[in-house]
Amino acid sequence: MSFTPLTEQLIEALQVLPGVGSRSAERMALQLLERDRTGAESLTRALRSALDGVRQCERCRALSESELCTLCSDDDRDHSLICVVETPQDREAIELSGGFRGDYFILQGHLSPIDGIGPEELGIPQLIDRVRDGGIQEVVLATNATMEGEATAHYLIEQLGPLGTAVSRLAQGVSRGELGRVDSGTLSHALTDRKQVSFEHD
Amino acid sequence: MSFTPLTEQLIEALQVLPGVGSRSAERMALQLLERDRTGAESLTRALRSALDGVRQCERCRALSESELCTLCSDDDRDHSLICVVETPQDREAIELSGGFRGDYFILQGHLSPIDGIGPEELGIPQLIDRVRDGGIQEVVLATNATMEGEATAHYLIEQLGPLGTAVSRLAQGVSRGELGRVDSGTLSHALTDRKQVSFEHD
Ligand SMILES: [Zn+2]
Ligand SMILES: [Zn+2]
Repeated sequence: MSFTPLTEQLIEALQVLPGVGSRSAERMALQLLERDRTGAESLTRALRSALDGVRQCERCRALSESELCTLCSDDDRDHSLICVVETPQDREAIELSGGFRGDYFILQGHLSPIDGIGPEELGIPQLIDRVRDGGIQEVVLATNATMEGEATAHYLIEQLGPLGTAVSRLAQGVSRGELGRVDSGTLSHALTDRKQVSFEHD
Repeated sequence: MSFTPLTEQLIEALQVLPGVGSRSAERMALQLLERDRTGAESLTRALRSALDGVRQCERCRALSESELCTLCSDDDRDHSLICVVETPQDREAIELSGGFRGDYFILQGHLSPIDGIGPEELGIPQLIDRVRDGGIQEVVLATNATMEGEATAHYLIEQLGPLGTAVSRLAQGVSRGELGRVDSGTLSHALTDRKQVSFEHD
Protein backbone atom coordinates (compact mmCIF):
# COMPACT_ATOMS: atom_id res chain seq x y z
CA MET A 1 0.00 0.00 0.00
CA SER A 2 1.07 3.59 -0.58
CA PHE A 3 0.42 6.01 2.27
CA THR A 4 0.85 9.75 2.80
CA PRO A 5 4.13 10.71 4.57
CA LEU A 6 2.42 11.49 7.91
CA THR A 7 0.49 8.20 7.72
CA GLU A 8 3.81 6.41 7.08
CA GLN A 9 5.28 8.11 10.16
CA LEU A 10 2.33 6.95 12.25
CA ILE A 11 2.66 3.37 10.95
CA GLU A 12 6.34 3.47 11.90
CA ALA A 13 5.63 4.93 15.36
CA LEU A 14 2.89 2.38 16.16
CA GLN A 15 5.51 -0.37 15.91
CA VAL A 16 6.93 0.65 19.31
CA LEU A 17 3.90 -1.22 20.71
CA PRO A 18 4.73 -4.81 21.79
CA GLY A 19 3.50 -7.41 19.30
CA VAL A 20 2.76 -4.84 16.58
CA GLY A 21 4.51 -5.40 13.23
CA SER A 22 4.17 -3.42 10.03
CA ARG A 23 0.93 -5.10 8.90
CA SER A 24 -0.92 -4.54 12.19
CA ALA A 25 0.46 -1.00 12.35
CA GLU A 26 -0.96 -0.28 8.88
CA ARG A 27 -4.36 -1.61 9.93
CA MET A 28 -4.24 0.47 13.13
CA ALA A 29 -3.24 3.69 11.36
CA LEU A 30 -6.04 3.32 8.78
CA GLN A 31 -8.58 2.52 11.49
CA LEU A 32 -7.58 5.64 13.44
CA LEU A 33 -7.39 8.04 10.49
CA GLU A 34 -10.26 6.76 8.35
CA ARG A 35 -12.81 5.43 10.78
CA ASP A 36 -12.17 6.45 14.38
CA ARG A 37 -10.84 9.99 14.66
CA THR A 38 -12.61 10.39 18.01
CA GLY A 39 -10.86 7.31 19.38
CA ALA A 40 -7.57 8.53 17.93
CA GLU A 41 -8.02 11.89 19.70
CA SER A 42 -8.71 10.14 23.04
CA LEU A 43 -5.67 7.92 22.56
CA THR A 44 -3.45 10.93 21.81
CA ARG A 45 -4.73 12.77 24.88
CA ALA A 46 -4.39 9.69 27.12
CA LEU A 47 -0.80 9.18 25.97
CA ARG A 48 0.06 12.85 26.58
CA SER A 49 -1.52 12.83 30.08
CA ALA A 50 0.10 9.53 31.07
CA LEU A 51 3.54 10.63 29.85
CA ASP A 52 3.22 13.90 31.76
CA GLY A 53 1.56 12.55 34.90
CA VAL A 54 2.91 9.04 35.47
CA ARG A 55 6.47 8.59 36.72
CA GLN A 56 8.45 6.09 38.78
CA CYS A 57 7.99 6.04 42.56
CA GLU A 58 11.23 7.46 43.98
CA ARG A 59 11.51 4.62 46.46
CA CYS A 60 10.40 1.44 44.65
CA ARG A 61 10.29 2.31 40.91
CA ALA A 62 6.60 1.36 40.59
CA LEU A 63 4.53 3.61 38.32
CA SER A 64 3.12 6.41 40.43
CA GLU A 65 1.46 9.79 40.01
CA SER A 66 3.22 11.26 43.05
CA GLU A 67 6.73 11.15 44.54
CA LEU A 68 5.92 7.99 46.51
CA CYS A 69 3.48 5.30 45.34
CA THR A 70 0.49 4.12 47.39
CA LEU A 71 2.38 1.18 48.93
CA CYS A 72 5.51 3.17 49.83
CA SER A 73 3.45 5.88 51.52
CA ASP A 74 1.27 3.40 53.45
CA ASP A 75 2.07 3.80 57.20
CA ASP A 76 0.61 0.39 58.00
CA ARG A 77 3.40 -1.38 56.14
CA ASP A 78 6.78 -2.40 57.55
CA HIS A 79 9.24 -0.12 55.76
CA SER A 80 12.24 -1.99 57.24
CA LEU A 81 11.63 -4.93 54.88
CA ILE A 82 12.25 -4.68 51.13
CA CYS A 83 11.17 -7.38 48.70
CA VAL A 84 13.03 -7.12 45.37
CA VAL A 85 10.98 -8.26 42.35
CA GLU A 86 11.50 -8.08 38.59
CA THR A 87 8.13 -6.67 37.54
CA PRO A 88 4.98 -4.98 38.88
CA GLN A 89 3.15 -8.24 38.00
CA ASP A 90 5.44 -10.07 40.45
CA ARG A 91 4.68 -7.46 43.12
CA GLU A 92 0.97 -7.96 42.41
CA ALA A 93 1.32 -11.77 42.77
CA ILE A 94 3.04 -11.35 46.16
CA GLU A 95 0.45 -8.80 47.32
CA LEU A 96 -2.35 -11.20 46.37
CA SER A 97 -0.65 -14.02 48.30
CA GLY A 98 -0.91 -11.87 51.45
CA GLY A 99 2.46 -13.26 52.61
CA PHE A 100 4.37 -9.99 52.78
CA ARG A 101 3.65 -6.59 54.38
CA GLY A 102 6.87 -4.69 53.73
CA ASP A 103 8.12 -2.48 50.90
CA TYR A 104 9.04 -3.53 47.38
CA PHE A 105 11.75 -2.63 44.96
CA ILE A 106 10.82 -3.23 41.33
CA LEU A 107 13.80 -3.81 39.05
CA GLN A 108 11.60 -3.50 35.91
CA GLY A 109 13.59 -6.36 34.36
CA HIS A 110 16.67 -8.43 35.07
CA LEU A 111 20.37 -8.20 34.21
CA SER A 112 20.80 -8.87 30.51
CA PRO A 113 24.17 -7.59 29.27
CA ILE A 114 23.33 -8.65 25.71
CA ASP A 115 20.40 -6.17 25.69
CA GLY A 116 22.45 -3.46 27.39
CA ILE A 117 20.61 -3.94 30.70
CA GLY A 118 23.06 -3.59 33.56
CA PRO A 119 22.72 -2.61 37.25
CA GLU A 120 22.09 1.07 36.37
CA GLU A 121 19.10 0.25 34.16
CA LEU A 122 17.58 -1.80 36.99
CA GLY A 123 18.04 0.98 39.56
CA ILE A 124 20.33 -1.23 41.66
CA PRO A 125 22.58 1.68 42.83
CA GLN A 126 19.40 3.33 44.17
CA LEU A 127 18.51 0.15 46.11
CA ILE A 128 22.07 -0.12 47.52
CA ASP A 129 21.91 3.55 48.63
CA ARG A 130 18.64 2.96 50.43
CA VAL A 131 20.03 -0.05 52.33
CA ARG A 132 23.24 1.84 53.11
CA ASP A 133 21.22 4.77 54.53
CA GLY A 134 20.06 2.38 57.30
CA GLY A 135 16.72 1.41 58.80
CA ILE A 136 16.45 -1.73 56.65
CA GLN A 137 16.38 -5.04 58.58
CA GLU A 138 16.09 -7.43 55.67
CA VAL A 139 16.11 -7.54 51.87
CA VAL A 140 14.07 -10.42 50.40
CA LEU A 141 15.20 -11.38 46.91
CA ALA A 142 12.21 -12.55 44.87
CA THR A 143 13.62 -12.48 41.35
CA ASN A 144 12.40 -15.25 39.05
CA ALA A 145 14.01 -18.70 39.12
CA THR A 146 15.16 -18.27 35.52
CA MET A 147 18.80 -18.00 34.48
CA GLU A 148 18.55 -14.20 34.26
CA GLY A 149 16.67 -13.92 37.55
CA GLU A 150 19.32 -16.07 39.28
CA ALA A 151 22.16 -14.01 37.84
CA THR A 152 20.44 -10.85 39.05
CA ALA A 153 19.97 -12.32 42.56
CA HIS A 154 23.65 -13.32 42.70
CA TYR A 155 24.73 -9.85 41.70
CA LEU A 156 22.48 -8.34 44.41
CA ILE A 157 23.88 -10.73 47.03
CA GLU A 158 27.43 -9.64 46.14
CA GLN A 159 26.49 -5.99 46.42
CA LEU A 160 24.36 -6.24 49.58
CA GLY A 161 26.57 -8.69 51.49
CA PRO A 162 29.20 -6.18 52.67
CA LEU A 163 26.50 -3.82 54.02
CA GLY A 164 25.62 -6.13 56.93
CA THR A 165 21.85 -6.17 56.34
CA ALA A 166 20.14 -9.58 56.30
CA VAL A 167 19.46 -10.86 52.80
CA SER A 168 17.07 -13.75 52.15
CA ARG A 169 15.64 -15.66 49.21
CA LEU A 170 12.26 -17.28 48.66
CA ALA A 171 12.04 -20.90 49.87
CA GLN A 172 11.92 -23.79 47.39
CA GLY A 173 8.63 -24.31 45.63
CA VAL A 174 8.73 -21.15 43.62
CA SER A 175 12.16 -21.91 42.35
CA ARG A 176 10.90 -23.23 39.02
CA GLY A 177 10.10 -20.30 36.78
CA GLU A 178 8.18 -17.11 37.10
CA LEU A 179 6.50 -15.75 40.21
CA GLY A 180 3.26 -14.89 38.44
CA ARG A 181 2.74 -18.58 37.59
CA VAL A 182 2.85 -19.78 41.19
CA ASP A 183 -0.41 -20.11 43.18
CA SER A 184 -0.98 -17.72 46.10
CA GLY A 185 -0.70 -20.39 48.82
CA THR A 186 2.66 -21.66 47.60
CA LEU A 187 3.93 -18.12 47.16
CA SER A 188 2.81 -17.12 50.65
CA HIS A 189 4.62 -20.14 52.14
CA ALA A 190 7.75 -19.45 50.13
CA LEU A 191 7.76 -15.95 51.61
CA THR A 192 7.20 -17.11 55.20
CA ASP A 193 9.85 -19.85 54.89
CA ARG A 194 12.38 -17.61 53.16
CA LYS A 195 16.01 -18.59 53.72
CA GLN A 196 18.64 -16.15 54.85
CA VAL A 197 21.64 -16.01 52.54
CA SER A 198 24.89 -16.88 54.30
CA PHE A 199 27.64 -14.64 53.05
CA GLU A 200 30.47 -16.94 54.23
CA HIS A 201 29.58 -19.43 51.52
CA ASP A 202 28.91 -17.03 48.69
CA MET B 1 -3.21 -5.67 38.28
CA SER B 2 -3.78 -2.32 39.95
CA PHE B 3 -2.73 0.73 37.94
CA THR B 4 -2.62 4.48 38.56
CA PRO B 5 -5.67 6.40 37.25
CA LEU B 6 -3.82 7.89 34.26
CA THR B 7 -2.39 4.45 33.41
CA GLU B 8 -5.96 3.05 33.56
CA GLN B 9 -7.09 5.79 31.16
CA LEU B 10 -4.28 4.91 28.76
CA ILE B 11 -5.17 1.19 28.93
CA GLU B 12 -8.78 2.10 28.12
CA ALA B 13 -7.79 4.41 25.24
CA LEU B 14 -5.44 1.84 23.66
CA GLN B 15 -8.43 -0.43 23.12
CA VAL B 16 -9.61 1.74 20.21
CA LEU B 17 -6.87 -0.04 18.24
CA PRO B 18 -8.18 -2.96 16.16
CA GLY B 19 -7.42 -6.35 17.73
CA VAL B 20 -6.35 -4.85 21.07
CA GLY B 21 -8.24 -6.14 24.13
CA SER B 22 -7.68 -5.27 27.77
CA ARG B 23 -4.75 -7.67 28.27
CA SER B 24 -2.77 -6.42 25.26
CA ALA B 25 -3.62 -2.83 26.21
CA GLU B 26 -2.17 -3.41 29.71
CA ARG B 27 1.02 -4.85 28.22
CA MET B 28 1.26 -1.91 25.80
CA ALA B 29 0.71 0.75 28.49
CA LEU B 30 3.38 -0.78 30.77
CA GLN B 31 5.83 -1.10 27.89
CA LEU B 32 5.35 2.57 27.00
CA LEU B 33 5.46 3.97 30.54
CA GLU B 34 8.07 1.71 32.12
CA ARG B 35 10.43 0.81 29.35
CA ASP B 36 10.02 2.95 26.24
CA ARG B 37 9.24 6.58 27.07
CA THR B 38 11.12 7.69 23.96
CA GLY B 39 8.96 5.47 21.76
CA ALA B 40 5.85 6.65 23.60
CA GLU B 41 6.82 10.28 22.90
CA SER B 42 7.33 9.54 19.18
CA LEU B 43 3.99 7.74 19.03
CA THR B 44 2.21 10.67 20.71
CA ARG B 45 3.83 13.15 18.31
CA ALA B 46 3.09 10.97 15.26
CA LEU B 47 -0.58 10.66 16.28
CA ARG B 48 -0.86 14.43 16.81
CA SER B 49 0.76 15.24 13.45
CA ALA B 50 -1.29 12.67 11.53
CA LEU B 51 -4.56 13.83 13.11
CA ASP B 52 -3.72 17.44 12.27
CA GLY B 53 -2.21 16.87 8.84
CA VAL B 54 -4.03 13.91 7.26
CA ARG B 55 -7.59 14.37 6.02
CA GLN B 56 -9.83 12.92 3.35
CA CYS B 57 -9.32 13.96 -0.28
CA GLU B 58 -12.28 16.18 -1.13
CA ARG B 59 -12.91 14.29 -4.35
CA CYS B 60 -12.29 10.59 -3.60
CA ARG B 61 -12.16 10.27 0.20
CA ALA B 62 -8.65 8.75 0.16
CA LEU B 63 -6.34 9.89 2.96
CA SER B 64 -4.50 12.96 1.75
CA GLU B 65 -2.37 15.77 3.13
CA SER B 66 -3.84 18.34 0.73
CA GLU B 67 -7.29 19.17 -0.65
CA LEU B 68 -6.88 16.66 -3.49
CA CYS B 69 -4.89 13.44 -3.25
CA THR B 70 -2.05 12.52 -5.62
CA LEU B 71 -4.30 10.50 -7.95
CA CYS B 72 -7.09 13.08 -8.13
CA SER B 73 -4.63 15.84 -8.96
CA ASP B 74 -2.77 13.80 -11.60
CA ASP B 75 -3.40 15.42 -15.02
CA ASP B 76 -2.45 12.24 -16.85
CA ARG B 77 -5.52 10.42 -15.56
CA ASP B 78 -8.97 10.37 -17.14
CA HIS B 79 -11.12 12.34 -14.69
CA SER B 80 -14.33 11.46 -16.61
CA LEU B 81 -14.20 7.87 -15.27
CA ILE B 82 -14.86 7.07 -11.60
CA CYS B 83 -14.24 3.63 -10.13
CA VAL B 84 -16.12 3.12 -6.85
CA VAL B 85 -14.32 0.85 -4.36
CA GLU B 86 -14.90 -0.06 -0.72
CA THR B 87 -11.39 0.46 0.63
CA PRO B 88 -8.01 2.01 -0.20
CA GLN B 89 -6.69 -1.57 -0.40
CA ASP B 90 -9.15 -2.23 -3.24
CA ARG B 91 -7.96 0.93 -5.01
CA GLU B 92 -4.39 -0.30 -4.57
CA ALA B 93 -5.28 -3.73 -6.06
CA ILE B 94 -6.83 -2.05 -9.11
CA GLU B 95 -3.88 0.32 -9.49
CA LEU B 96 -1.47 -2.62 -9.37
CA SER B 97 -3.51 -4.45 -12.05
CA GLY B 98 -2.87 -1.50 -14.39
CA GLY B 99 -6.37 -1.96 -15.87
CA PHE B 100 -7.79 1.45 -14.97
CA ARG B 101 -6.55 5.03 -15.47
CA GLY B 102 -9.48 7.08 -14.19
CA ASP B 103 -10.46 8.49 -10.78
CA TYR B 104 -11.60 6.56 -7.75
CA PHE B 105 -14.21 7.06 -5.11
CA ILE B 106 -13.47 5.25 -1.85
CA LEU B 107 -16.55 4.44 0.20
CA GLN B 108 -14.40 3.45 3.22
CA GLY B 109 -16.82 0.59 3.88
CA HIS B 110 -20.16 -0.72 2.65
CA LEU B 111 -23.79 -0.25 3.63
CA SER B 112 -24.41 -1.93 6.95
CA PRO B 113 -27.58 -0.61 8.60
CA ILE B 114 -26.99 -2.82 11.65
CA ASP B 115 -23.73 -0.92 12.35
CA GLY B 116 -25.34 2.44 11.62
CA ILE B 117 -23.50 2.74 8.29
CA GLY B 118 -25.83 4.30 5.72
CA PRO B 119 -25.25 6.30 2.50
CA GLU B 120 -24.12 9.41 4.45
CA GLU B 121 -21.33 7.53 6.24
CA LEU B 122 -20.04 6.26 2.87
CA GLY B 123 -20.06 9.73 1.30
CA ILE B 124 -22.59 8.62 -1.34
CA PRO B 125 -24.37 12.02 -1.52
CA GLN B 126 -20.94 13.53 -2.35
CA LEU B 127 -20.49 11.00 -5.20
CA ILE B 128 -24.00 11.69 -6.56
CA ASP B 129 -23.29 15.44 -6.49
CA ARG B 130 -20.10 14.97 -8.44
CA VAL B 131 -21.87 12.93 -11.15
CA ARG B 132 -24.75 15.42 -11.26
CA ASP B 133 -22.28 18.29 -11.74
CA GLY B 134 -21.44 16.71 -15.11
CA GLY B 135 -18.24 15.78 -16.95
CA ILE B 136 -18.47 12.12 -15.87
CA GLN B 137 -18.82 9.60 -18.71
CA GLU B 138 -18.95 6.42 -16.68
CA VAL B 139 -19.08 5.16 -13.11
CA VAL B 140 -17.51 1.71 -12.63
CA LEU B 141 -18.84 -0.09 -9.56
CA ALA B 142 -16.10 -2.26 -8.05
CA THR B 143 -17.57 -3.06 -4.66
CA ASN B 144 -16.81 -6.55 -3.34
CA ALA B 145 -18.91 -9.55 -4.42
CA THR B 146 -20.04 -10.07 -0.85
CA MET B 147 -23.63 -9.60 0.32
CA GLU B 148 -22.86 -6.14 1.69
CA GLY B 149 -20.89 -5.14 -1.40
CA GLU B 150 -23.78 -6.25 -3.64
CA ALA B 151 -26.33 -4.34 -1.58
CA THR B 152 -24.13 -1.25 -1.80
CA ALA B 153 -23.81 -1.62 -5.59
CA HIS B 154 -27.60 -1.99 -5.97
CA TYR B 155 -28.18 1.13 -3.92
CA LEU B 156 -25.67 3.05 -6.07
CA ILE B 157 -27.35 1.81 -9.29
CA GLU B 158 -30.71 3.07 -8.03
CA GLN B 159 -29.25 6.47 -7.20
CA LEU B 160 -27.09 6.89 -10.32
CA GLY B 161 -29.61 5.48 -12.85
CA PRO B 162 -31.80 8.59 -13.15
CA LEU B 163 -28.76 10.81 -13.77
CA GLY B 164 -28.16 9.40 -17.26
CA THR B 165 -24.45 8.63 -16.80
CA ALA B 166 -23.26 5.16 -17.85
CA VAL B 167 -22.83 2.79 -14.91
CA SER B 168 -20.90 -0.46 -15.25
CA ARG B 169 -19.81 -3.36 -13.07
CA LEU B 170 -16.73 -5.56 -13.12
CA ALA B 171 -16.99 -8.61 -15.39
CA GLN B 172 -17.36 -12.12 -13.92
CA GLY B 173 -14.21 -13.63 -12.48
CA VAL B 174 -13.89 -11.25 -9.61
CA SER B 175 -17.44 -11.89 -8.54
CA ARG B 176 -16.44 -14.32 -5.80
CA GLY B 177 -15.35 -12.33 -2.78
CA GLU B 178 -12.95 -9.52 -2.15
CA LEU B 179 -11.04 -7.52 -4.73
CA GLY B 180 -7.75 -7.73 -2.87
CA ARG B 181 -7.78 -11.55 -3.20
CA VAL B 182 -7.97 -11.53 -6.99
CA ASP B 183 -4.76 -11.70 -9.04
CA SER B 184 -3.76 -8.65 -11.10
CA GLY B 185 -4.35 -10.27 -14.51
CA THR B 186 -7.90 -11.37 -13.69
CA LEU B 187 -8.66 -7.99 -12.13
CA SER B 188 -7.31 -6.14 -15.18
CA HIS B 189 -9.51 -8.28 -17.50
CA ALA B 190 -12.56 -7.79 -15.28
CA LEU B 191 -12.03 -4.05 -15.63
CA THR B 192 -11.57 -4.12 -19.40
CA ASP B 193 -14.57 -6.41 -19.89
CA ARG B 194 -16.78 -4.46 -17.50
CA LYS B 195 -20.52 -4.70 -18.25
CA GLN B 196 -22.73 -1.67 -18.52
CA VAL B 197 -25.71 -1.82 -16.19
CA SER B 198 -29.04 -1.63 -18.05
CA PHE B 199 -31.46 0.50 -16.07
CA GLU B 200 -34.57 -0.90 -17.77
CA HIS B 201 -34.10 -4.20 -15.94
CA ASP B 202 -33.08 -2.91 -12.55
ZN1 LIG C 1 6.81 2.96 45.77
ZN1 LIG D 1 -8.53 11.87 -4.29
